[in-house]
Amino acid sequence: MRSRSSKRIRLGLVGVGNVGRRVLELLLTKRSVLLDGLGLDLVLVGVADSGGIAMAAGGLSMERILDLKARGQSVANDPEFGRPGIPAVDLVRMAPSDVLLEASPASPRDGQPGLGCIEAALSRGMHVVTANKVPLVLAFPRLLALARAHGGELRFDATVAGGLPAVNLGRRDLCGATVHRLEGVLNLTANYVLARMEAGLSLAKALSEARLAGHAEADPSLDIDGWDAAEKLVILAHSVLDYPATLEQVEREGIASVTRDQLRRAAGQGMRVKLLAVAERGEAGLRLVVRPVWLKADHPLARLGASEMGIRFHTDVCGVLTAAIVEETPMPTAFAMLRDLLDLYAPHASSLAGDVSAALGDGSSEEED
Amino acid sequence: MRSRSSKRIRLGLVGVGNVGRRVLELLLTKRSVLLDGLGLDLVLVGVADSGGIAMAAGGLSMERILDLKARGQSVANDPEFGRPGIPAVDLVRMAPSDVLLEASPASPRDGQPGLGCIEAALSRGMHVVTANKVPLVLAFPRLLALARAHGGELRFDATVAGGLPAVNLGRRDLCGATVHRLEGVLNLTANYVLARMEAGLSLAKALSEARLAGHAEADPSLDIDGWDAAEKLVILAHSVLDYPATLEQVEREGIASVTRDQLRRAAGQGMRVKLLAVAERGEAGLRLVVRPVWLKADHPLARLGASEMGIRFHTDVCGVLTAAIVEETPMPTAFAMLRDLLDLYAPHASSLAGDVSAALGDGSSEEED
Repeated sequence: MRSRSSKRIRLGLVGVGNVGRRVLELLLTKRSVLLDGLGLDLVLVGVADSGGIAMAAGGLSMERILDLKARGQSVANDPEFGRPGIPAVDLVRMAPSDVLLEASPASPRDGQPGLGCIEAALSRGMHVVTANKVPLVLAFPRLLALARAHGGELRFDATVAGGLPAVNLGRRDLCGATVHRLEGVLNLTANYVLARMEAGLSLAKALSEARLAGHAEADPSLDIDGWDAAEKLVILAHSVLDYPATLEQVEREGIASVTRDQLRRAAGQGMRVKLLAVAERGEAGLRLVVRPVWLKADHPLARLGASEMGIRFHTDVCGVLTAAIVEETPMPTAFAMLRDLLDLYAPHASSLAGDVSAALGDGSSEEED
Repeated sequence: MRSRSSKRIRLGLVGVGNVGRRVLELLLTKRSVLLDGLGLDLVLVGVADSGGIAMAAGGLSMERILDLKARGQSVANDPEFGRPGIPAVDLVRMAPSDVLLEASPASPRDGQPGLGCIEAALSRGMHVVTANKVPLVLAFPRLLALARAHGGELRFDATVAGGLPAVNLGRRDLCGATVHRLEGVLNLTANYVLARMEAGLSLAKALSEARLAGHAEADPSLDIDGWDAAEKLVILAHSVLDYPATLEQVEREGIASVTRDQLRRAAGQGMRVKLLAVAERGEAGLRLVVRPVWLKADHPLARLGASEMGIRFHTDVCGVLTAAIVEETPMPTAFAMLRDLLDLYAPHASSLAGDVSAALGDGSSEEED
């Protein structure tokens, strides 16, 4: 155990559902790694759900918040610091936090309450780490400008393909390269449903299985009709391709009309049907399409299993880069938020292997001492 | 075209072979992207090959250096700044550079001349970006300590699997997670040879094809006998798994004994043979193995084509992450060096999409102005 001064980072969390809850679990289970390995003392000073907020400058008990949620209660029921009925955006305005972790379910119509929370945080100069697509789809340029104006950072790797660092790969590892074409299997539920339909299940049965795993959106149309994949494609267009895309520009066709018979016929021809999101540069600009596509079985995205997502970048000077993730639960999405958070405060972690990875491993580093 | 002040970065390059030459080509073809988009004015102040050096504080002509190499001459033949017979390490000691780009062929025995150059650069407080495995395999902890002591950074993403950001994924995107098992197809030549042998070629014929593509090591035993893959595994062990591995600890078996008949039999059983590099944590510590393995056809690494490499991370909280690259030439490896360089000087490029990607795209950003 190293004794070195740690940096105290005050966190506000909005949204304690499938993802937000796991962010708290990660902050608890990885506490010694973060504190001893990276010198980061991550303190939860505020949390909000649809029932209200809990706020404490000295730090909330994450165990107690998780316990409330496990019992189906609001964080506003925290016996010491709960405040029922206060909206999330007020938490963001009041809580003395450095970073907003935004994992709320947003209305597809106006992106609220997430959009307002992100705006409030960036306006205060806070950093924002979000897993929430809608605010970015609705207001990416404005949010980026707000971040710049006030000196905060906006991070959103968790919005696209869960734990897969899709945004990071495109923006950071391919910085300096030109991406001609980008294609992805970006919606886990649609991919799961198609794979299970291949195995003989009905769409409805496959969808309810996906819901049990915690992946499906509350409104199944977001997954099945391709809205979710289209939103992710818009975020990739903005962030990786610097193209100011809107959701309306995406040609979109979902998987509702895909039949088991079609899947069988595809398989008979050595092919697989995937809900593919594609962005391709052409003479007329960028074309954005989400639709079910027959892929040859040896296409890397055709090979993805039921619990996998993947992305493929066709570039000028870095070949064709493919990445995929097997994601059985929403934990990797929560981890993607932690990854973005660590990148804000320990961006050179990657150059400190001796110090950092030691504490991140399985304890084998103790052999050194 | 944006007018903003640019930052002048002085580069020294050691090694102007398949990779080093392409680094120069990238610096030329991407010049406006780097200058206008990222504000980086990258100047080559010194270059070394086995014949000597060329050095100019005001900057060398990269076109002229490339022209010399294309005509089979040494950089020491530069008519204005060439100095025959001066060793590379003297260039590193003398040239007023901020970063050493190290892409020389190193002796497997002592890592020279690369090791000496890297030590000299780090001792001067310079940053080092290397594509050279041997010095890392021989002296990773010492080089890291040297970098820390003098405030420089040591970057080496290009040493493992070419343009695939394998080290970046493991160190940065999985920072905070525990990698239980890591497996990769890390040697392009061995993978190419096996794929071509599947198609009926002899090992010798397949190897000469690989050499034409510019991938094969000068000494074929490095590829065929698994040494190259073992070196990459050692680098991953140090940097991603924080395990101070040595080359001797790697159980190693090459592909020399793999026959076309074995490949046919594997295919008949729906399997493919790959030279797999595996690091796995167990009770006895980390086990490191490089050997030909029969993989089921639906294993993501089994599916890799002749010109592909791939890596797979099995983690605690980020699922199973796989990445692969199709790499027809050594250009992606050169790009990986540029990526490391950009990360040193524009680490927050990823948060500047509007400014940065604009210049990196296809010019569509002009619509905004």
